[in-house]
Amino acid sequence: MKILYNSTGDDMVNYPTKKKLYRSISINQSNRGMSLEEDLNQSNAFYLVHNIANVHKKPTPVQVVQVQYPSRNKAKIIEAYYKKPSTTDYNGVYKSRAIDFEAKETNHATSFALKNIHQHQLDHLKSVQSHGAIAFLIIRFSRYNETYLLFYYQLEEFLSKNTRKSIPREYIVKHGKELPYTHMPPLDYLKVIDEEIQRSSL
Amino acid sequence: MKILYNSTGDDMVNYPTKKKLYRSISINQSNRGMSLEEDLNQSNAFYLVHNIANVHKKPTPVQVVQVQYPSRNKAKIIEAYYKKPSTTDYNGVYKSRAIDFEAKETNHATSFALKNIHQHQLDHLKSVQSHGAIAFLIIRFSRYNETYLLFYYQLEEFLSKNTRKSIPREYIVKHGKELPYTHMPPLDYLKVIDEEIQRSSL
Repeated sequence: MKILYNSTGDDMVNYPTKKKLYRSISINQSNRGMSLEEDLNQSNAFYLVHNIANVHKKPTPVQVVQVQYPSRNKAKIIEAYYKKPSTTDYNGVYKSRAIDFEAKETNHATSFALKNIHQHQLDHLKSVQSHGAIAFLIIRFSRYNETYLLFYYQLEEFLSKNTRKSIPREYIVKHGKELPYTHMPPLDYLKVIDEEIQRSSL
Repeated sequence: MKILYNSTGDDMVNYPTKKKLYRSISINQSNRGMSLEEDLNQSNAFYLVHNIANVHKKPTPVQVVQVQYPSRNKAKIIEAYYKKPSTTDYNGVYKSRAIDFEAKETNHATSFALKNIHQHQLDHLKSVQSHGAIAFLIIRFSRYNETYLLFYYQLEEFLSKNTRKSIPREYIVKHGKELPYTHMPPLDYLKVIDEEIQRSSL
């Protein structure tokens, strides 16, 4: 299918100017309790403009069925459906390493249910890890406003010893790394990646 | 926005079984002259099932405006628009390295017009290259059925010496690497990446 770009569609704010970024900082200060996705988008925008890393959220996959062309150069999609993602939502590059992760919030008090992540996405994390990417999950327990980074190899270790379909919060607290809410970037997950690169001398 | 997955939407064939892959080989043999996108999708599927690399095409970014819920668990998008992509179409991981590229076909006989690639995408390639990703373009001259891989640093070199807005075909023939059409994968671009890794001792 040939893609036509319409003139009214917004650009994604993936390459924010510094001005834009600072505007979003002030929004942030006045509006704590943003979604995990918003925190990560701001963190990635921060990493990008400061030349620290290039990490992006992938677009949500959509199956387009019908498109109208009400005017020249303007394609209007009038029938489409969400598709199951076959990969994770976030990937990019940091210090020459491929980065790949999925981020999820849960309102559950004591555990994170694995059904929150599609099997395809777990397979994908396993695959990219085997090719040398740094693969992980970012999990937020909304109830406590706590966010953790858990490497995929840690999840594998858990799964090898357990048959249950959810990871207890204590396991994540013990083995994961908490990502404290910081001013900017809101979630400095690359700090944890740095420690991991040093620890494993990768 | 909360995403609901409908049950009718097709899954992407990003994790094909070997059976599926072999079926696509026979389709391929009987139907030469596939699009560059199809050739790359088959090549990436081949790399994936043979555990050589994990490279995916990103979904086309769509701005969803209106969604209907005609039945439970089924979200129907009834108004949406294509957005300009801010990143390239393809990325992934190979031998621990981040891979990032854009692929384009042209029907032009003597040059490849740079307007085929959004400025955002060129900025993106520059950025990921600076972070250590292997960044490149795959360009097909449909008229000759010739496909070339040109590293982003080679494009930069061209741009530093030229003000014109198109790359002459001779430049691409001379400095790029031709990707011969092979049985499977149809376009073995990782072979060129291997040579590059060896050459530059990365």
